[in-house]
Amino acid sequence: MELLGRSFVAGVRISRGATVFFGKAAATGERLDPGFTSSSMEDVDDAAKAAAAAATVFAKTSPKVRVELLRAIAAHLEKLAPDLVPRAMAESGLPQARLEGELARTCGQLRLFASVVEDGSWQNARIDRALPGRKPLPRPDLRSVLMPLGPVAVFGASNFPLAFSVAGGDTASALAAGNPVVVKAHPAHPGTSEIAALAIAQAVSESALPAGIFSMLFDDGIAVGQQLVQHPAIEAVAFTGSHRAGRALMDLCASRPRPIPCFTEMSSLNPVFILPGALASDPLGRAKGLHGSFTLGAGQFCTKPGLVFLPESGGAAAFREELRTLTSASAPFTMLTSGIADAYHRGLEDRGKLDLQTAAAAPATSPQSHAVLLESTLEGFQRDSVLHEELFGPTTLLVSWDSRERMLQAAEAMEGHLTATLLGDEADLLANADLISILERKVGRLLVNGFPTGVEVSHAMVHGGPYPATSDSRFTSVGSQAILRFVRPVCYQNFPQAALPDSLRDENPLGIMRLVDGELTREAL
Amino acid sequence: MELLGRSFVAGVRISRGATVFFGKAAATGERLDPGFTSSSMEDVDDAAKAAAAAATVFAKTSPKVRVELLRAIAAHLEKLAPDLVPRAMAESGLPQARLEGELARTCGQLRLFASVVEDGSWQNARIDRALPGRKPLPRPDLRSVLMPLGPVAVFGASNFPLAFSVAGGDTASALAAGNPVVVKAHPAHPGTSEIAALAIAQAVSESALPAGIFSMLFDDGIAVGQQLVQHPAIEAVAFTGSHRAGRALMDLCASRPRPIPCFTEMSSLNPVFILPGALASDPLGRAKGLHGSFTLGAGQFCTKPGLVFLPESGGAAAFREELRTLTSASAPFTMLTSGIADAYHRGLEDRGKLDLQTAAAAPATSPQSHAVLLESTLEGFQRDSVLHEELFGPTTLLVSWDSRERMLQAAEAMEGHLTATLLGDEADLLANADLISILERKVGRLLVNGFPTGVEVSHAMVHGGPYPATSDSRFTSVGSQAILRFVRPVCYQNFPQAALPDSLRDENPLGIMRLVDGELTREAL
Repeated sequence: MELLGRSFVAGVRISRGATVFFGKAAATGERLDPGFTSSSMEDVDDAAKAAAAAATVFAKTSPKVRVELLRAIAAHLEKLAPDLVPRAMAESGLPQARLEGELARTCGQLRLFASVVEDGSWQNARIDRALPGRKPLPRPDLRSVLMPLGPVAVFGASNFPLAFSVAGGDTASALAAGNPVVVKAHPAHPGTSEIAALAIAQAVSESALPAGIFSMLFDDGIAVGQQLVQHPAIEAVAFTGSHRAGRALMDLCASRPRPIPCFTEMSSLNPVFILPGALASDPLGRAKGLHGSFTLGAGQFCTKPGLVFLPESGGAAAFREELRTLTSASAPFTMLTSGIADAYHRGLEDRGKLDLQTAAAAPATSPQSHAVLLESTLEGFQRDSVLHEELFGPTTLLVSWDSRERMLQAAEAMEGHLTATLLGDEADLLANADLISILERKVGRLLVNGFPTGVEVSHAMVHGGPYPATSDSRFTSVGSQAILRFVRPVCYQNFPQAALPDSLRDENPLGIMRLVDGELTREAL
Repeated sequence: MELLGRSFVAGVRISRGATVFFGKAAATGERLDPGFTSSSMEDVDDAAKAAAAAATVFAKTSPKVRVELLRAIAAHLEKLAPDLVPRAMAESGLPQARLEGELARTCGQLRLFASVVEDGSWQNARIDRALPGRKPLPRPDLRSVLMPLGPVAVFGASNFPLAFSVAGGDTASALAAGNPVVVKAHPAHPGTSEIAALAIAQAVSESALPAGIFSMLFDDGIAVGQQLVQHPAIEAVAFTGSHRAGRALMDLCASRPRPIPCFTEMSSLNPVFILPGALASDPLGRAKGLHGSFTLGAGQFCTKPGLVFLPESGGAAAFREELRTLTSASAPFTMLTSGIADAYHRGLEDRGKLDLQTAAAAPATSPQSHAVLLESTLEGFQRDSVLHEELFGPTTLLVSWDSRERMLQAAEAMEGHLTATLLGDEADLLANADLISILERKVGRLLVNGFPTGVEVSHAMVHGGPYPATSDSRFTSVGSQAILRFVRPVCYQNFPQAALPDSLRDENPLGIMRLVDGELTREAL
């Protein structure tokens, strides 16, 4: 496939910006052809306006049209796999098996949202029937249902070039809800982005939907993204990335003349609490599991366990020794970009001043990186604020404690994270109900005896959490509930049947679950 | 009952501020005893910290405890009615029947949320069972449920001294979800606020719950409210009031080091579209209905119809004539406060420069106000931005149009509102599908052949809408869905039964509706 290096503006391949940038091979730093022309301010404006123009039509489409669109995108992505996977391998440095798995996950997400739309119950349709005889006042007929917000700006993330990028979960959930999407492609994988956008554009062109429901813009700077989220036609923003960039987007959205919802998934240490029983019974197994998790994908996951609380009790020495050995023996890692590798090395240098490094694999040459184990006391962790910041890359911080009370204080003092993990036997968990209570207020997902780096795409998944893990803990960006970020309820009072949306008509033509006078039912009225 | 004029800080009656202020009789401006001492910064801090300390206990209470609390608050309010209603009448100038009705509504809201908590399905409990044999990777056991956010700051509104104030819908929904509440009482009805707070404090003291789940602070300035929303222990904000104050709160919440959800319900013109068929068939009836709605409660409702689009077709002259006559014959109105009356008169003066006034009742002396009908062409409306601002009080603006295309453009150019109303027969509605499509994107509630000033408290009600109607169109502040403003999902992965919340245990001890492997059921696993 020949890449054009141009944006998609409502089906038109055009980039009117002044700069050209290139993808780079993550493994070598080598420049990859072709050049990608950045989008101009005019491109942004055209894409946003086309999205707004398409929004009303798209909002009115039957669920069937959206279901077919989502499935067609998945099918096109699969057809393009022979181009998509090698390009993503080159741009991200991620291995083939991982990217094939990520492509399967990406298509699985699209199909999950298709099935959610098909089922229809997500729309939260509610009907309170009229009570004309009620005293002192009659009750009118009231019906409400979730409707799309309108054009959503989606930012591709660097660490999942498929599943959290152009055709990833944000795009899938926004389209499923009936919102046009304008993607700002991540400059670290422009070729991958172009191929994924092609799959979406093909699916759109085969549908009866307006081309304006999908655009994708290129830029290796921040101007296009900034203009996009401030554009009056944009109604919501979805982003996965750094705390700095995420907070900047939040602030831009909040300071617009008309503020808009902004869902940013930002930074998380994903604390792991090793509990005494589990430590005593299997210190080596726990160390092995932790090493596998913090080095998985070169430690470039939002859910990488970056902070581990270790009690100074039986098994601690063996656990520590094993973790040091495994860390030292780790093979070097290819990082996603030289920028991420540089930030990782700078972060290690900052922490290096604290003299915490206890084990490290042989240093690797940039853009490769080496695994590092840092160790601190609880006092040191509480004192040094840099240790509370996420460090993207194959490293974790082991914090030893000998006072349970102070460990609980440290947990209570934590900011929000995406996940927290407890490694413990049943007795450990019963003895740590107070710790669990604290963690429930700090994170979006609590795990027992697993590691947080696997994020299942399902109905019950919560990939979210209190700030700074995300901008809004009331939502998740992974799983079927991610669709709720991009909808709002609309109520119809005393509407005649013919003027109601299908979801609210008496005969329930969509066959969806509805709350009728407070009772859930799929029955017609 | 003797009022103390002091705040409620976690059950303690204390106000350590430097200023004392008084309620005023709305009808006469006369000072009402006693003096109310404002809260100090220390009071705010104590209230917020007590709320945070109580939050974990409260979040863990069984639904039964919350149900009993909500019902006890309603019962105490009813018991205090002989004190509450006369004091509210004096402070607000609203008539007895209205306040008795509002008290019934307030107690009804508390009991609705009690029944929602009792039913439990609102918690959106989801269970995805483990698939240990799944290829390529097993699926872990995942369960999620909505959990309270933590302490909520609630601002009392002036125009509903009971239903949107201390024990109103914000407090009821926040408590129902398990969140402690710190109320900032509205200074226009401090005595009413004290009595309502007493009802809540009594209910809390009779429960086994910590006193910190409820505090109420006094201040006739803005310092206490500002400090409250910026306090690190506060997790969410709920407010009903002016656009200026609401936007200021939004900006404060967004600019915190740790931003928090902020739901503000602000301003709305509640546009009414009179359609040709309805106009021709019953011009006088439509005029009478509109006059009743825009003067109801002296036009001091969030949902007052402040903008009316009138086609220059059959019946228009009769409609206009009748509306002028009714407006001129309106008796004077007692406004809630002299501040609101002043703002109303200033607003009329601003519009007076545009020479739009076509009918008015005889001017009344402040704090009383008179009804005014303003009339403009579509061109005038599109030109003068002041006509797009809410004017609280017994006035509405009639905008005549003779080009349907331009009327649609004006509708498309509107900002967000709480409601939009269509007065039309079935043929009108079918002929105006395009108008309905536009309005669906502009408001939270669409009405046919009614008036927006009644807001039913039910499952399907949406009292919300795009900015500037509210800060976040994804939520409603009235009806059972208002609880969703103050909760977030938490996911439990591979948790043993004993460590799970009751809502997620296999045996479903609460008997709630749950989504199990994608299917809704009340069955145990």
